[in-house]
Amino acid sequence: MNCFLAPSVWSKRMRIYDILEQKRRGEEHSREQLEFFINGFVSGDIPDYQAAAWLMAVCCNGMTDRETATLTEIMAASGDSVDLSRFGERSVDKHSTGGVGDKTSLIVAPIVACCGGKVAKMSGRGLGHTGGTIDKLESVPNFRTELSSDEFFETVEKTGMAIIGQTGNIAPADKKLYALRDVTATVESIPLITSSIMSKKLAAGALSLVLDVKVGSGAFMKTEAQARVLAQSMVNIGKRLGRNVTAVLTDMDTPLGSAIGNSLEVAEAISVLKGECRGDLYEVCISLAAEMLSLCLGVDTAKAHEMAQEAVSSGKALSKMREWMAAQGADVRYIDDPSLFKRAEYVRELKAEEDGYIASMETARIGAASVSLGAGRVKKTDVIDPAAGIVLSAKTGDKVKKGDTLCTLYTSSPDRADEAERIFRGAVTLAPQPTTRPPLIYGIIK
Amino acid sequence: MNCFLAPSVWSKRMRIYDILEQKRRGEEHSREQLEFFINGFVSGDIPDYQAAAWLMAVCCNGMTDRETATLTEIMAASGDSVDLSRFGERSVDKHSTGGVGDKTSLIVAPIVACCGGKVAKMSGRGLGHTGGTIDKLESVPNFRTELSSDEFFETVEKTGMAIIGQTGNIAPADKKLYALRDVTATVESIPLITSSIMSKKLAAGALSLVLDVKVGSGAFMKTEAQARVLAQSMVNIGKRLGRNVTAVLTDMDTPLGSAIGNSLEVAEAISVLKGECRGDLYEVCISLAAEMLSLCLGVDTAKAHEMAQEAVSSGKALSKMREWMAAQGADVRYIDDPSLFKRAEYVRELKAEEDGYIASMETARIGAASVSLGAGRVKKTDVIDPAAGIVLSAKTGDKVKKGDTLCTLYTSSPDRADEAERIFRGAVTLAPQPTTRPPLIYGIIK
Repeated sequence: MNCFLAPSVWSKRMRIYDILEQKRRGEEHSREQLEFFINGFVSGDIPDYQAAAWLMAVCCNGMTDRETATLTEIMAASGDSVDLSRFGERSVDKHSTGGVGDKTSLIVAPIVACCGGKVAKMSGRGLGHTGGTIDKLESVPNFRTELSSDEFFETVEKTGMAIIGQTGNIAPADKKLYALRDVTATVESIPLITSSIMSKKLAAGALSLVLDVKVGSGAFMKTEAQARVLAQSMVNIGKRLGRNVTAVLTDMDTPLGSAIGNSLEVAEAISVLKGECRGDLYEVCISLAAEMLSLCLGVDTAKAHEMAQEAVSSGKALSKMREWMAAQGADVRYIDDPSLFKRAEYVRELKAEEDGYIASMETARIGAASVSLGAGRVKKTDVIDPAAGIVLSAKTGDKVKKGDTLCTLYTSSPDRADEAERIFRGAVTLAPQPTTRPPLIYGIIK
Repeated sequence: MNCFLAPSVWSKRMRIYDILEQKRRGEEHSREQLEFFINGFVSGDIPDYQAAAWLMAVCCNGMTDRETATLTEIMAASGDSVDLSRFGERSVDKHSTGGVGDKTSLIVAPIVACCGGKVAKMSGRGLGHTGGTIDKLESVPNFRTELSSDEFFETVEKTGMAIIGQTGNIAPADKKLYALRDVTATVESIPLITSSIMSKKLAAGALSLVLDVKVGSGAFMKTEAQARVLAQSMVNIGKRLGRNVTAVLTDMDTPLGSAIGNSLEVAEAISVLKGECRGDLYEVCISLAAEMLSLCLGVDTAKAHEMAQEAVSSGKALSKMREWMAAQGADVRYIDDPSLFKRAEYVRELKAEEDGYIASMETARIGAASVSLGAGRVKKTDVIDPAAGIVLSAKTGDKVKKGDTLCTLYTSSPDRADEAERIFRGAVTLAPQPTTRPPLIYGIIK
């Protein structure tokens, strides 16, 4: 540092230099410093190399909850925000940290909406091994994922829910910061992940929020311990910022449910709401819906569980799905009869090559197999095949005999199936003895 | 990280990403990784934001001695290097971490050269509060700080020494990395400081090296503890790379000697070599020269001390200075009679405003006062006034009476003197009781 610059230059230069030096030493920033940093970075006054140094210092030295909350607030305020105050206490949202076969939004939102919650939700598209709700919804013919702001609010008023793609300029600071984190190995930092997720959720406006923090081989957090730390951080920060937040730690060491791929997952969601499907997917959805209902209706969790189960068993949640999809323009014949969904051009069953128990499924690789079939994107501009994907016939812990079907691949060509088969087989391990599956729900953090 | 990129892109991107991730976790890099990083950064393949993230990770998580040595070697190899093998065991260099009034090179090099050492030295210019040897030498009329490589070696062969400005492309990796460190608050890191200094010294070719690590208010290292850590690191790394290295920790809590400013310092150096001046400056120079002689001649330190003292008392070192300066073109009448040096246009004596003992001198600010007089540079392009500077009449520990001269300012105008007086008076504290000065030499690390 040259200490002889003209005072004006010096003070400006000193401010960012001081901020970097402070975080290098592990000290806490003031609100003014964080505002100076984030606003300067978004405007381009602070160059990428200084922001990258700061991000690394945060990765190494952390941030206090107070700092993380302030950073979250500043990032949320960097762009548009959605005003859901018209829904009072009833507005409720859900966020998943991302997984394979995770179609919970399609099931949970109708359950919550038919019980009185107001779910005004913005969702994303898939990238890499994780899918996105918007891609799934677009596999339903005529479903409109873009609504005007008036249409969006009207749909929520009328049906209790709407799910649209992210519109406007939500948390641009996070967008710019995330792009830099992605190329500087600074993604893995609890305060940075927390502020990234929570700034978008804060701007999205719901008063209550349930976080589905995934744990395992298909999740960003590979261990329960890591996931707990992240969940606790997000709950703390959400509460500091005046939101009701609960985190549910759920298993992602195997894909959730059986279907991976867009129309395949919509069909599975329908089957859950029809009550035809009672496995891990159903259990996770009931838990998430119950936590959402508990927050937005102020009922206890036991009561909320009952309400959620009743919403499915009575058929009300299925009707709500139909009503909501119709409100967003969908051809609801596909909801009534999912066999109408266009079938993939090429289908292949993978058979077990020996007897045994499925000991593990490397779930990120199974997600990669579905991407190679056309169900997801490697880069943002890739086009998705809505019919492509995988339906699992056996999951971790299941016994299989040689010749039993392990899964069915849906795609456009034998070549794609070859590639996916190679990946899938490499991701699944058989053992002579049964293994115990990890718990479906590791815990709930309030 | 997107794990679905094409393999070639992926492997290239992964390498730098892996390196950043590893250092974020505090792990040790391999030689291949450090080569990939440094060479990629110098070539421009690795952008500043990735390099900045790495630098911050090193600041936070450190490097092992093995890594620091490897990094030093790679940075030294990034440009030209000087081959001093013709001087065998005799080649010896000195490096100071920078201070105020530090004219030791002008004194030490002739002492060592007249005892048989070979000092083929490249020096720098001053920036900020510290001066540079090349600026000092250029205050001697006709002295040539640029010599061809042949002239440089011939001068050393003939006179035992030469001092020139840095030529060629020495450690360009350090130059580029330092510029980035300067704007990302990543200067203060022992492994980065060590590799920066030692890579240049390695490329400069001397087999033996004495490091003058300054401690105190005018030094980069403010405390003995910090200075010891840096000194030990540089000694370790130098030895790992096959050089003979000794570090001397010397006081920079007050300016060294009395003169600050270019021709003023040359005059003081001459007076030391004439034996007229026996204070802190003389003591530090004898110690540094003795350590250099001990390394390059293989004699014990007690013997080396005697040799150094004898070189001064016999007048041989003064003759050597004259011979060397003549060999580099200087008008040696100025050596014989320093009163010939052009006197500054405006001179002001600062008087003590009260009785007392000088309790402390904030030495970096005294350096700043000399810069404001025209003796140094705020930015690289500033032009120096060779006659400008400060001569101290009293230093820390000295008793002064109201009206006694504290110092004399040499400059071009009363305005400049006003500014310097303000800074100088703010930097000097008087106390009613005497203070003990810190030791002149804190220790020697071999």
